[in-house]
Amino acid sequence: MYKYAIGVDYGTSSVRAIVVDVANGEEIGSSVFAYPTGIDGVIVSNSDTHLARQNPSDYTMGFIASISGALAQAKKHSGFQVEDIVGIGIDTTGSTPIPVDKDGTPLALSPAFANNPNAQAWLWKDHTAWEEASSITEMAKAKGVPYLEKCGGTYSSEWFWSKVWHCLKVDPKVFHEAYSWTELCDYVPAWACGDTNPHTLKRSICAAGHKAMYHESWGGLPSKKFLSALNPELAALRDRLYAKAFASDVCAGRLCTKVAKEVGLPAGIPIAVGAFDCHHGAVAAGAKEGILVKVIGTSTCDIVVSPKETCAETIPGVCGLVPGSVVPGLIGIEAGQSAVGDIFNWFAQWFVSRQNCCLESGLSATATAGKVHEQLQEEAARLKAGQSGLLALDWNNGNRTILVDPRLTGLLLGQTLSTTPAEVYRALIEATAFGARAIKERIEEYGTPVKEVIACGGIAEKSPLLMQIYADVLGCPMGVSRSKETCALGAAIFGTVASGFYKSTEEAQQHMTGRPKVTYYPQKESSAVYNELYTLYKKIHDAFGGVVLQADLSMVMKELLTIAARER
Amino acid sequence: MYKYAIGVDYGTSSVRAIVVDVANGEEIGSSVFAYPTGIDGVIVSNSDTHLARQNPSDYTMGFIASISGALAQAKKHSGFQVEDIVGIGIDTTGSTPIPVDKDGTPLALSPAFANNPNAQAWLWKDHTAWEEASSITEMAKAKGVPYLEKCGGTYSSEWFWSKVWHCLKVDPKVFHEAYSWTELCDYVPAWACGDTNPHTLKRSICAAGHKAMYHESWGGLPSKKFLSALNPELAALRDRLYAKAFASDVCAGRLCTKVAKEVGLPAGIPIAVGAFDCHHGAVAAGAKEGILVKVIGTSTCDIVVSPKETCAETIPGVCGLVPGSVVPGLIGIEAGQSAVGDIFNWFAQWFVSRQNCCLESGLSATATAGKVHEQLQEEAARLKAGQSGLLALDWNNGNRTILVDPRLTGLLLGQTLSTTPAEVYRALIEATAFGARAIKERIEEYGTPVKEVIACGGIAEKSPLLMQIYADVLGCPMGVSRSKETCALGAAIFGTVASGFYKSTEEAQQHMTGRPKVTYYPQKESSAVYNELYTLYKKIHDAFGGVVLQADLSMVMKELLTIAARER
Repeated sequence: MYKYAIGVDYGTSSVRAIVVDVANGEEIGSSVFAYPTGIDGVIVSNSDTHLARQNPSDYTMGFIASISGALAQAKKHSGFQVEDIVGIGIDTTGSTPIPVDKDGTPLALSPAFANNPNAQAWLWKDHTAWEEASSITEMAKAKGVPYLEKCGGTYSSEWFWSKVWHCLKVDPKVFHEAYSWTELCDYVPAWACGDTNPHTLKRSICAAGHKAMYHESWGGLPSKKFLSALNPELAALRDRLYAKAFASDVCAGRLCTKVAKEVGLPAGIPIAVGAFDCHHGAVAAGAKEGILVKVIGTSTCDIVVSPKETCAETIPGVCGLVPGSVVPGLIGIEAGQSAVGDIFNWFAQWFVSRQNCCLESGLSATATAGKVHEQLQEEAARLKAGQSGLLALDWNNGNRTILVDPRLTGLLLGQTLSTTPAEVYRALIEATAFGARAIKERIEEYGTPVKEVIACGGIAEKSPLLMQIYADVLGCPMGVSRSKETCALGAAIFGTVASGFYKSTEEAQQHMTGRPKVTYYPQKESSAVYNELYTLYKKIHDAFGGVVLQADLSMVMKELLTIAARER
Repeated sequence: MYKYAIGVDYGTSSVRAIVVDVANGEEIGSSVFAYPTGIDGVIVSNSDTHLARQNPSDYTMGFIASISGALAQAKKHSGFQVEDIVGIGIDTTGSTPIPVDKDGTPLALSPAFANNPNAQAWLWKDHTAWEEASSITEMAKAKGVPYLEKCGGTYSSEWFWSKVWHCLKVDPKVFHEAYSWTELCDYVPAWACGDTNPHTLKRSICAAGHKAMYHESWGGLPSKKFLSALNPELAALRDRLYAKAFASDVCAGRLCTKVAKEVGLPAGIPIAVGAFDCHHGAVAAGAKEGILVKVIGTSTCDIVVSPKETCAETIPGVCGLVPGSVVPGLIGIEAGQSAVGDIFNWFAQWFVSRQNCCLESGLSATATAGKVHEQLQEEAARLKAGQSGLLALDWNNGNRTILVDPRLTGLLLGQTLSTTPAEVYRALIEATAFGARAIKERIEEYGTPVKEVIACGGIAEKSPLLMQIYADVLGCPMGVSRSKETCALGAAIFGTVASGFYKSTEEAQQHMTGRPKVTYYPQKESSAVYNELYTLYKKIHDAFGGVVLQADLSMVMKELLTIAARER
């Protein structure tokens, strides 16, 4: 009596579907579909580096292709049959809003708008709306409304209202043609269920709460009065959006006959309400009280859950506090670092671009980059904490949490004439670890303790060096999530809960997640050194981040030299 | 009736001798001898990166080899004969004190001490004595004595008394075996004259005044009372040092028969009192009122001369104010940057060490380094001032002037995910230019105006990019000294003065130096941007250098981003 669930995970460049055994979370089929439109799936602009859009038809094509592929693999598994699929879950990037018509069909699918970037999906990392974001922040402060209390006090250019408003400004034709806007994580489940009606499709609390200033305490979306102050047309749009949002343990609907036929499944399979990738990933990684899940990639997404009773009303500088956005019944707290893997890649790229001879000798740029990372890691791993005398800030892409300031930049200090690239590489890893500690401490200061970190993402798997440094800096165990495809597994978990196969998210987690496959524990000596370095990091952090306006930095370099001499 | 002079210039890794025509300073023979001992001529230690020593026998071997070589070349010149040599001048690195016996022979030459690093010459860049240096500074302050007034208020680990005292602490056997200590610039002329007796050999005012706290106004070297307070054995040593020091227009003695035979010259040629390389170099570059001579190499030496009447009694943070140390009759002001070319080499080396394939393909490390510099310069030259958003401190080897603090380190800020190595390379050049500006401004604040800078050294010749940036940052013309071997030419100039061939240093300068061969003028637009960047540089400089203890750095990154956006 085997039973299975399907998880579908929409990333930035591709979508992956997996088929998993609900008894143990084991994956028996998996398939990836790369979005065909644009560069690596993203529509970009030569004249505006902030622009990042996607073709909505790539999503539906990808749903069919990835599930069909995963099923084809699963069928090789003895005992599997499509009738045993109990539910489907879906997660996506976000905030990725799509302008849609009265039926909920993306404008981009109509020939008149097919080639207009503003009519496509506005990908999470589109930053064209940075001016609108600061206007929203200013307006919320000026009006004394509570709408930013749950998202750290600052609205982002990556979020729903900034993007929609920016569309109104730069392309009123698209704005007026759009009857409503649907988040990607709401659109795919609705489409798979055969009904994308903007008024009735079930919206995700994750997208609504983290990105659209939705909270039950103030009656859902921001008031028409407030939206009117931004622009009356935004207030009018509010009526064509939604009044209620749901967690992923709720059933969004059932797989419709048309889509079922195309993917090769029986119609009627329950589909869970969607959510963002990291939130599902956090559940699969084992999110529960006391655990911080870190999805470490080019940037990070940090997720903690907290009981309503003890969770603070607001945590300054933290992206969001949304009831049920991760585990239904608990408050989902989201934070993040603007750049982690991106910083290491940036630095490694310096050496790739100089190794023309390697490239000429036939090695690809990617292979050369891989080799550079490997060498730097190997050398960096031979160093002890503190011995390089270096200290860095992890702000090459600004600071998302806890300063919420994109206008910050990187910093490296402590260089001597014998500082090596491997020492800098290690200092950059350490800088991201210090950034991670600042987030952990901020969350803990506001009443949600963290006893253990579980990391997922490629870097967590591939870099024992980074994991050990994080354990030492954070002063708590760092586990590597058991599943490689954590987000997709999280989606599958919600497929089992929304369908009622499991009674609760916790019950599904008990069966389908597992203990981390490796855990790194803090080493006493390194931790002690990192405590000293973190004190210095915080000094620099607060001085350049504007937390303090009278900083005494006169001893920073000398203290680093003293530590380095001692540890060498 | 051609006449010639010989200049001998002892650098960190080699010694160069040149033969020049006294009528026009034209070089007709030149030869370099690389010191055979240690790594690039320097004895180093695996356990202490501060240690830098040299084998004294390398100096005498080098004297013979380099002069012989230069003469061999000169002899190909029609009309040259060794009898036409009117004088010899010698300059060296310093402070490079050598422990010597009662006859003035280096201890290192006796078998018992041949392998003891503490019995060798203590090279200028040896920093083992940093604790002694701060003790001397503290003691001078505590006792209210004026000994540091002429050297910027802070004694350095690179200087005579720190090194001698450190030897007493770490190797009392060497200290007690040494009857006296002789500076390299005093040892070589004395040895060439055949009499190294510590009591009678003519000591250089340049070494004494700039490095050993010697000044006529307080009776020569520091009092025995003061030295006693440091350590009674230092007070006892004072009697075995010297009571008077001389400028390089004074004759130290005449070439002795033994050495004359070995180098192939007639005995009896007058030899000038020695001095430090940059001081002689400054004279050859055209040092006179209103001109700042910058010898730009791995580090810089900055030299200005000032009339006694208008020169300040003391200039905080400036290495030294010594009457006659450059041009006899004027006060020589010396300042310096601890690392300039060394910083660029350090950064370029990162890319050399990664270009294994280049090395494998037959290119030497030096050739690869040259190629890397060339590429980085080329790319950096295409950038505009301010457009990278980067700002750096030039402290990879500490700060000599104006902070006199070796316990400072490098800093780079403003990095984004698209910062390139060429941008960093340019920022490092700019950092050294800002460091140069801080020195120029400090000297001007204390009453010695600078209207023009004349640069000498390899970088001045090879990097139009650096010269233009310096002109823009300093806001005054930057000339490139006519002679390539400025220091050696300066030594030759003093050979003509000490021998009485020319009546004064000024007269010799008139004949033997010339106008700069190229001059770079400030460009208005870049200068304006650099004025903005310099304000930010000073903020960081003062904060990390301990000039201010309450620094507001909250807007530094944002202002850099604004400048970068504007200039891009």
